[in-house]
Amino acid sequence: MIKVAVDAMGGDYAPSQMVAGAIAAANLRKDIQVVLVGRKEDVEKELSGKDYPHDRIQIAHASEVIATEEPPVNAIRKKKDSSIVVGMNLVKKGEADAFVSAGSSGAVLVGGQVIVGRIKGVERPPLAPLIPTEKGVSLLIDCGANVDARPSHLVQFARMGSIYMEHVMGVKNPRVAIVNIGAEEEKGNALVKETFPLLKACTDINFTGSIEAREIPHGGADVIVCEAFVGNVILKLYEGVGATLISKVKAGMMTSLKSKIGALLVKPALKETLKSFDASQYGGAPLLGLKGLVVKTHGNSKANEVCNSIIQCVTFKEQGINEKIKESLSIETQEQN
Amino acid sequence: MIKVAVDAMGGDYAPSQMVAGAIAAANLRKDIQVVLVGRKEDVEKELSGKDYPHDRIQIAHASEVIATEEPPVNAIRKKKDSSIVVGMNLVKKGEADAFVSAGSSGAVLVGGQVIVGRIKGVERPPLAPLIPTEKGVSLLIDCGANVDARPSHLVQFARMGSIYMEHVMGVKNPRVAIVNIGAEEEKGNALVKETFPLLKACTDINFTGSIEAREIPHGGADVIVCEAFVGNVILKLYEGVGATLISKVKAGMMTSLKSKIGALLVKPALKETLKSFDASQYGGAPLLGLKGLVVKTHGNSKANEVCNSIIQCVTFKEQGINEKIKESLSIETQEQN
Repeated sequence: MIKVAVDAMGGDYAPSQMVAGAIAAANLRKDIQVVLVGRKEDVEKELSGKDYPHDRIQIAHASEVIATEEPPVNAIRKKKDSSIVVGMNLVKKGEADAFVSAGSSGAVLVGGQVIVGRIKGVERPPLAPLIPTEKGVSLLIDCGANVDARPSHLVQFARMGSIYMEHVMGVKNPRVAIVNIGAEEEKGNALVKETFPLLKACTDINFTGSIEAREIPHGGADVIVCEAFVGNVILKLYEGVGATLISKVKAGMMTSLKSKIGALLVKPALKETLKSFDASQYGGAPLLGLKGLVVKTHGNSKANEVCNSIIQCVTFKEQGINEKIKESLSIETQEQN
Repeated sequence: MIKVAVDAMGGDYAPSQMVAGAIAAANLRKDIQVVLVGRKEDVEKELSGKDYPHDRIQIAHASEVIATEEPPVNAIRKKKDSSIVVGMNLVKKGEADAFVSAGSSGAVLVGGQVIVGRIKGVERPPLAPLIPTEKGVSLLIDCGANVDARPSHLVQFARMGSIYMEHVMGVKNPRVAIVNIGAEEEKGNALVKETFPLLKACTDINFTGSIEAREIPHGGADVIVCEAFVGNVILKLYEGVGATLISKVKAGMMTSLKSKIGALLVKPALKETLKSFDASQYGGAPLLGLKGLVVKTHGNSKANEVCNSIIQCVTFKEQGINEKIKESLSIETQEQN
């Protein structure tokens, strides 16, 4: 049995879609227990009349909500009774194995570090979303809030990302690459040049060298290592270019009567193919290296993504990801000695 | 009359498409003189039988070619009789106003700095391609080879980019923004945080603040300032995501008989709309801040893009861009005193 705390108040469609996602997960698998964290009366209203296992969905009352625009550090410090702080405290106290939130990214990142806390030896917990590629998905690590990373951080990202892709996503011997501006070893900025030989020396990962941004959508690597500023640019540009192109395609189809008729005919097939270019079916982005698991889902998550994020937590626990991360850090320490 | 040297040997479709582009430009405008730089016999073969003004297309013989995979610094130093070195020397000696090449990016960047040379006061010449957006195009500055820029470089990029967009592209009072991971002033890595107040203090540009990568394809700014590593990631990811999505759309249309018929009907309209998401119609990427103009066009440029790049050089010269850059640097010096 695994216990997942879910932020019932965070996200564009909270509380309804968060609660619906929790119900779906609990109905789908008997080994899941969900704690919905948020305003009791709001959550109860959403639950009322729904068909779900009453013994496996509980409520943890939290009177406050952290808004997306609030400065995260301040919000975490002051709103002690917010759904994010209460939910993370459940993980900290061992009363939940994981916490899933579609709320403020900043607050989730700060709370993860400050409340849940890092595994001993982890220098910086990276946020690692899955991005869609031609071949499936890749893990983009780090897209967190801490920029200006050091080479040792990137090496830990590579190790943690590799463990996640192998054991949660089931990719055998995942290809790990570092984002660079050319394929050659001598290319790159100071950070990449310093990190490259360190990654090459890692015996526990399948490091394949540099990856140019052009190759990322083609699925050129399973684990894409970069510091958070670059990761953020990649993640957001992915969304931006995708949205713009799809709207161009739609507009193009609406320009003439002929094309409008054509659009009706291609639409169902197109929808199906483009669905494969949407990573939300895989769940949310884990914040790795914490004593417990924190998963950040998109702000616009609906029930399906919330449900998938909860199930993702089960695999994370079952596969003993944190134990494997601890093991990998001990290899690191041995190598340094 | 403006004289443009064209690298006849660089690019995937050299020499035929380079020569065809030069002919098109010379036929289009009477104020253009082209010097085709490359192996005389190859260029003559391409010219033979074509209809063009013989007095306005010359050949400058160059016996060598720099290949894309050659280490640039070495290639520029050793291949003294390569089309890139010979062409750039024409600009240096004042025998040509500009040089256009679809050849090795690295060699063009190195040659620009080493042979043509920087305008006094320019700390680093940025490569500034145009990228397509929903609203038209934006200038992405810098995508060059020199990474780990300093704040003062970024400020010069902003100034030069603003001048280019206003006077070559005709965008009145162009919006200048810096690539960042959030819209707030306190966000960013060390470089962005240091650069932000410097840009805010510039009285000669229309600085609008930070731009998140998501907003770039929506046309959120006219001049997008970043250091070269991030610029390279943006440029290449743009291409990668675009190519992947278009291939997904095409594959989707081919999944059933119904969708195949639909595809036939939407294809012409779609082609037209997607053409607007292709920046090559505007010419190549200028390497700004040099004593003369160097334009790098895509390696896969065909005649049309080469022709547009040559015409772009005319506007550059007519508008006195380098004089305006020098003026802007003198404002900078005054502000510092």
